[in-house]
Amino acid sequence: MILSEKNINSSPHLPFGDQRTAPWYGKSILSVKQFSKQDLKYIFEVAHEMREMVERVGTFDLLKGKILANLFYEPSTRTASSFTAAMERLGGSVIPINEVKYSSVAKGESLPDTVRSLECYSDVIVLRHPEVGASALAAQYARKPIINAGDGIGEHPTQALLDLFTIIEEKGQVDGLTVTLLGDLKYGRTVHSLSRLLSLYNIRLNFISPEILTMPREIIGELDQKGIPSQELRMLEEIIPETDVLYVTRVQKERFEDTKEYEKVKGTYIITPETLSVAKKDMIVMHPLPRVGEISMDLDVDPRAAYFRQMEYGMYVRMALLAMVLGKA
Amino acid sequence: MILSEKNINSSPHLPFGDQRTAPWYGKSILSVKQFSKQDLKYIFEVAHEMREMVERVGTFDLLKGKILANLFYEPSTRTASSFTAAMERLGGSVIPINEVKYSSVAKGESLPDTVRSLECYSDVIVLRHPEVGASALAAQYARKPIINAGDGIGEHPTQALLDLFTIIEEKGQVDGLTVTLLGDLKYGRTVHSLSRLLSLYNIRLNFISPEILTMPREIIGELDQKGIPSQELRMLEEIIPETDVLYVTRVQKERFEDTKEYEKVKGTYIITPETLSVAKKDMIVMHPLPRVGEISMDLDVDPRAAYFRQMEYGMYVRMALLAMVLGKA
Amino acid sequence: MILSEKNINSSPHLPFGDQRTAPWYGKSILSVKQFSKQDLKYIFEVAHEMREMVERVGTFDLLKGKILANLFYEPSTRTASSFTAAMERLGGSVIPINEVKYSSVAKGESLPDTVRSLECYSDVIVLRHPEVGASALAAQYARKPIINAGDGIGEHPTQALLDLFTIIEEKGQVDGLTVTLLGDLKYGRTVHSLSRLLSLYNIRLNFISPEILTMPREIIGELDQKGIPSQELRMLEEIIPETDVLYVTRVQKERFEDTKEYEKVKGTYIITPETLSVAKKDMIVMHPLPRVGEISMDLDVDPRAAYFRQMEYGMYVRMALLAMVLGKA
Repeated sequence: MILSEKNINSSPHLPFGDQRTAPWYGKSILSVKQFSKQDLKYIFEVAHEMREMVERVGTFDLLKGKILANLFYEPSTRTASSFTAAMERLGGSVIPINEVKYSSVAKGESLPDTVRSLECYSDVIVLRHPEVGASALAAQYARKPIINAGDGIGEHPTQALLDLFTIIEEKGQVDGLTVTLLGDLKYGRTVHSLSRLLSLYNIRLNFISPEILTMPREIIGELDQKGIPSQELRMLEEIIPETDVLYVTRVQKERFEDTKEYEKVKGTYIITPETLSVAKKDMIVMHPLPRVGEISMDLDVDPRAAYFRQMEYGMYVRMALLAMVLGKA
Repeated sequence: MILSEKNINSSPHLPFGDQRTAPWYGKSILSVKQFSKQDLKYIFEVAHEMREMVERVGTFDLLKGKILANLFYEPSTRTASSFTAAMERLGGSVIPINEVKYSSVAKGESLPDTVRSLECYSDVIVLRHPEVGASALAAQYARKPIINAGDGIGEHPTQALLDLFTIIEEKGQVDGLTVTLLGDLKYGRTVHSLSRLLSLYNIRLNFISPEILTMPREIIGELDQKGIPSQELRMLEEIIPETDVLYVTRVQKERFEDTKEYEKVKGTYIITPETLSVAKKDMIVMHPLPRVGEISMDLDVDPRAAYFRQMEYGMYVRMALLAMVLGKA
Repeated sequence: MILSEKNINSSPHLPFGDQRTAPWYGKSILSVKQFSKQDLKYIFEVAHEMREMVERVGTFDLLKGKILANLFYEPSTRTASSFTAAMERLGGSVIPINEVKYSSVAKGESLPDTVRSLECYSDVIVLRHPEVGASALAAQYARKPIINAGDGIGEHPTQALLDLFTIIEEKGQVDGLTVTLLGDLKYGRTVHSLSRLLSLYNIRLNFISPEILTMPREIIGELDQKGIPSQELRMLEEIIPETDVLYVTRVQKERFEDTKEYEKVKGTYIITPETLSVAKKDMIVMHPLPRVGEISMDLDVDPRAAYFRQMEYGMYVRMALLAMVLGKA
């Protein structure tokens, strides 16, 4: 056990709270590529203990006195709120910076300068930025840890981690599962990162998408190399009975040049109670949210609908990462 | 006594802090219609104790570890700040969400989905929304309590409660008072809700407005049915000497088709020190704020000007409601 | 010593925390003109102790239970974040109010009314406003202290204080130093206020600017009257070897009617490692930030580059001022 109420209050000799033994102390979280399977195990253990602590006591003072600068160059209520809640539940404080377009950035300040200014006030910086590589650039200049909260079409590692953590918490383990990814697999940053993380496990993958939105060859290639069995399909029906995790993403009408093409396929990509009638009783349905019709609201009462629980798991993962990079786990 | 410093620190056996006996634990605050006279008494007792605690110690840790999601779909600095201050004075934390138009909502997410996401991070949601019924809809889907902070031309129950609480704190009681409502009585959500709450008491009401902005027949009818004596007037002069509470709202020029009509009446609806020269020495002047000229700044030094104190009472009422729905009062 | 961990926890008989002996309790911070040399000494002593406390413990509970309303009528991420961090590091809470243009102000509310509403919820108000004199106006109406965080082309006293505090912390003292101000000296609010504060000390000043952007005659006159030796120059080269503090500000292209004029001079106003090759080993380079090219990023690794440390000193000065006006230092 890494954390416990007792440790938090009194035990400097335990791993928890001892910066010398905290393996992620001072490090930045930039990409899913930086995590080994062992790293993931560690993160999810800490996240699981965060969940238990929150369920037991709501908040606790592990990061009391620490300040998070929540630097969002583009709006993302959900992610910003999740990090804010994570920091507050750990007893820390947050400096929200959401209007960057109106402020010093508009005066032409570079990202490295902004980050080096903000780290004068804060202990850790969460960065959302529209440009690929922004977090890596920031981390290069910053003395304090940077957590990438999405950099354009690049990475959004905490989303991928929370997706995987959801599977672990809901299904007990990852090995042996059949995971079906559905929807826009071409442009979906989320499904790319998740596929890469899943490839560290003994798993079977199904990719279901319209022909124009298939999973990029590059990722299929990576999976093949690692010996992960995967197949690409157009229709969900045949594969749903053997699916353990159904990960749904939106198929945007705008991706189609010909609206008729969209109308033809869209029915396949809307999940209803009927869709689940042939699914396993313990299958789970995930979605990164927001959804706009691709999962029927009628499904929300089904215990297999895991997408709101997924949000909550996200908070625990972010609590774990904040505690880790600040040397407290 | 419901709260006291002593209780807060040590007494699990007293009503305070015991969820089993907290009558509003987990409930949503959606409409003034949900309150009986007994309910109001309870709310105002708690609010009064909040006032005493703030005056004595500033803040205290009754809601330490609790998180409020302050979800504003339209800007309202005053209301948002009041809830933020209320939560912070109770030792809780706030997730401010003010830019909803730019964020996931812009991506088409439904209110039920937004609320069900945010409740994963928070313990209570304060909701301001431009559409009537939004809070009721949110409460239908949410597991956590919703507090309606205004839904379009619908309700703004915490404003009505703070108005009534102001009268109680300033005048000692409500029964026996003569309350004069002045200004735009047709479109003013505030005066409608306040009239309904006042109708629970033994009270006399005067309605003073331009002919085109009179109190709706529906509300006059409700008052008649409950036997509340009320009269409608065009001019304030004759009625001011017997008034105990003068509640002022703005008459907007835009309501008048003919500008000349507006020019003719506007003088009646501007309160100056002269207006008060024939008023009772212990009358109070209230206003929901912001004011734009309808109360002369010369009046601000008069102790009867209660409108800024009214703001402060609002914070105490919101502290009371937050503590109640979170099972702490 | 004014503050110490011990005092903070237990000593009501020491100056710290005793409102009766706190010389700035309840006062507003509006202009650098209100500070005597003795006042500055006091502020910087408190700020220095804030620095030591932050370095030692990160945050502490000197202002626990106090609420700051951070009222920004125009965006300034840097200043707003600095005050937020200052308040949070002192254990207090912040109500951020950044969108004033969309809110009650848009409905026409006067600044005195907004301030008198907000002070119902808060203990101190930090005000940024585009109009000269806004903070003085606010302070005239408010019961709670106002801290001016910039009022148009008027004052920005906490910037001037942090500039001076940076010099003291970096150089040990002010007397005897040669300070060179470079760039746009005509429109730069920062350099005007700093010059005035520096004139309280035994100091030598160099002003280096394009001919169209020289220091206003009024300020030169004030310096002459106080017997402060100063000289105006076009080029930095000759003066850099004797400079102890080089304060750089941006020369904006838009100030020049003739672009050719700008192109001719701009090289003089870009600081590079070469510029510093003939400078003292312990000279410091300051800049109010954001910079846009006027200091080469190659200089950032030079220990003489003090501009990011300057940001951090700003937080300590703001912590000191908040503690002082709230009667805790």
